[in-house]
Amino acid sequence: MSVRRELHTPSRTIMTPGPVEADPRVLRVMGTPVVGQFDPAFTNIMNETMAMLRELFQTENRWAYPIDGTSRAGIEAVLASVIEPGDSVLIPIYGRFGLLLTEIAERYGAKVLTMECEWGKVFDPEDIIQEIQQARPKIVAMVHGETSTGRIHPLREIGEACQAYDALFIVDAVATVGGCEIKVDDWKIDAAIGGTQKCLSVPSGMAPITYNDRVADIIAKRKKVERGIATQADSTRLSGNRPIISNYFDLSQLEDYWSERRLNHHTEATSMLYALREGVRLVLEEGLEERFERHRVHEQALQTGIKGMGLELFGDESCKMPVVTCVQIPEGIDGESVRNMLLTQFGIEIASSFGPLAGKIWRIGTMGYSCRKENVLFVLAGLEAVLLRHGAAIEAGKALQEVLHFYEETETKAVL
Amino acid sequence: MSVRRELHTPSRTIMTPGPVEADPRVLRVMGTPVVGQFDPAFTNIMNETMAMLRELFQTENRWAYPIDGTSRAGIEAVLASVIEPGDSVLIPIYGRFGLLLTEIAERYGAKVLTMECEWGKVFDPEDIIQEIQQARPKIVAMVHGETSTGRIHPLREIGEACQAYDALFIVDAVATVGGCEIKVDDWKIDAAIGGTQKCLSVPSGMAPITYNDRVADIIAKRKKVERGIATQADSTRLSGNRPIISNYFDLSQLEDYWSERRLNHHTEATSMLYALREGVRLVLEEGLEERFERHRVHEQALQTGIKGMGLELFGDESCKMPVVTCVQIPEGIDGESVRNMLLTQFGIEIASSFGPLAGKIWRIGTMGYSCRKENVLFVLAGLEAVLLRHGAAIEAGKALQEVLHFYEETETKAVL
Repeated sequence: MSVRRELHTPSRTIMTPGPVEADPRVLRVMGTPVVGQFDPAFTNIMNETMAMLRELFQTENRWAYPIDGTSRAGIEAVLASVIEPGDSVLIPIYGRFGLLLTEIAERYGAKVLTMECEWGKVFDPEDIIQEIQQARPKIVAMVHGETSTGRIHPLREIGEACQAYDALFIVDAVATVGGCEIKVDDWKIDAAIGGTQKCLSVPSGMAPITYNDRVADIIAKRKKVERGIATQADSTRLSGNRPIISNYFDLSQLEDYWSERRLNHHTEATSMLYALREGVRLVLEEGLEERFERHRVHEQALQTGIKGMGLELFGDESCKMPVVTCVQIPEGIDGESVRNMLLTQFGIEIASSFGPLAGKIWRIGTMGYSCRKENVLFVLAGLEAVLLRHGAAIEAGKALQEVLHFYEETETKAVL
Repeated sequence: MSVRRELHTPSRTIMTPGPVEADPRVLRVMGTPVVGQFDPAFTNIMNETMAMLRELFQTENRWAYPIDGTSRAGIEAVLASVIEPGDSVLIPIYGRFGLLLTEIAERYGAKVLTMECEWGKVFDPEDIIQEIQQARPKIVAMVHGETSTGRIHPLREIGEACQAYDALFIVDAVATVGGCEIKVDDWKIDAAIGGTQKCLSVPSGMAPITYNDRVADIIAKRKKVERGIATQADSTRLSGNRPIISNYFDLSQLEDYWSERRLNHHTEATSMLYALREGVRLVLEEGLEERFERHRVHEQALQTGIKGMGLELFGDESCKMPVVTCVQIPEGIDGESVRNMLLTQFGIEIASSFGPLAGKIWRIGTMGYSCRKENVLFVLAGLEAVLLRHGAAIEAGKALQEVLHFYEETETKAVL
């Protein structure tokens, strides 16, 4: 490369299920100068972030901190720290990210038991509970919101069953945290993993996790302090449990780093932590309920527009994820050609899907900072124009009229 | 937490061996808006970063890309992807980060053979070569620059021996890349891992790696595409090699993400990639040779000042790392009290050390953006004042006079 030009990115309206537009206030704090990892000013920021994460996850758990990696790093850290070879793990799969849980659990030696349902639906919680009763797994792992199919799963009854049958309940809340209700303590979730680049509107690169004492107890039994920083007291391991394979994802070491002991592990990703702290602060400032309601309003607006132009939604409406709307690609229309024209002509990004849904649906996100009126109006305007350009039988002009009417009504109600 | 105040950090002069001050131009690009991970504008940034990383590592390797995690994530990704249980790994240890290599290799099932030398020295390369000849390990892993002791290891002869005896040579260049010469191809290094938060002056949170075809061949034999995105062609694995345990650190999957196939793995850490690209761009713009020379000049200035005030350096001078200077804590002085006063009164951070050197030495970094004249002068001024305040037998005023003289001479020479 002879010319090394300065970084330049085009303007984009990002309406995918992530990564979405980062909040400009989050981007701004990323320019804050670095401070050292053991500087009291920095460890204070670590503690503040932990406190705010507890509020975000609606938990009293001691442990709530980020893994320095993308969302799947958080998932792997939890699974790798909990699963010992031979452990039984029940994974109800209703989309691609359930498959990812299976993949990771198997790599760490779990005996995985899966249940599968048609993509676009979720399970009857009773079926899962029955499976727990019969199989008595050590762990039940599942996805809260499946962006691949746009479905959200009820968790409360499953959490209660897990507690009753002494299984650990691990939940991938990557796509829901900060956008949809997730009550870690109330729902008896033992460990939850969130994502940054979706409803939190923080760039990808960190994964906030939280877990309770049931999980912490397992981790403690597998604890091993690394040579080079261990003291005499650390050198004897009392239990016969196998140490955690990964060093980077070893939550027992991360606890020593995120608590008073401040034992060096990695060097915390300074600027990403600034960003996460700001992203969560903005969520709490907006208010969890208010934020969830905002996501619901724009989801309704988007659906109104999609239906208004004559398109059909994909999937079972009763378990639709409020922050992702899946749209059937009309017969005879090349979905990728539509996405491409939206990007190159309008600078708007929407998503395709995976596996059995590839080429069949588009996925439109309404997440975090991207979830706002002008974005909803713009994606509908763009989609309508591009579909007309592709010869689709779309009713011109109706979508935006109906959505404007919806917003006017909603705003009137909000004033009353 | 009732008050969720805006992020605020104090002003700091960071003269540790990392994390150091990020270049303001790097911080600035972190505020660039997010673009989607498969947006051609973003995949172009990925490709540009790969090209620049090749220049940084002085390699023609196809594979040069970052792991989304801190430096040890890069180390673990390489070791986890290469090591199969039972593989023999020779690790010559001359400080804490050699121990970390041991720790990670053992966790992945390696039969680790170590050599140790006194902290503050390095090995005679001939001793390592002899060990390679005798033990014939599959892998030799070692640290290029040990920040814990401030030593740098000659690698060229060892690389040649590794090639001659068919061992893979894996080098932790976390603390040296961008500050000291590291010639991946010339020195026959099979895989190298760099760090961002040291000589590159990019915040912590990414680890650029590079590896050649010898490593890529091993990884290819262990390849496994995950369910949910695999096609028919992926489903049959031909070899009997064990798949890589970690999903997140599976370099065979990362290759599919960083190449034309663009198979979804994680969501690339957008803002950190912007930062890494800018940091490496600035290194190449300055010029590798010019940058290494700048580091040497300020190192000499710092040493002049340290000796000028009557302090002694720690360690074997012949293998001193140019970007870290280790200083003996004078008899009767509480090293942590000095560090604390430096931080709270002057806002200057220097480092202590680990293991056998804890309490015995301070470590002062001259890395990346922190490596500049005003920082060297300020750390010396602060250290002198704090030592006087602690009653140390220090000659007042002499350090800065000698360093100013040194800089004037150096600058005069540079003009000629």
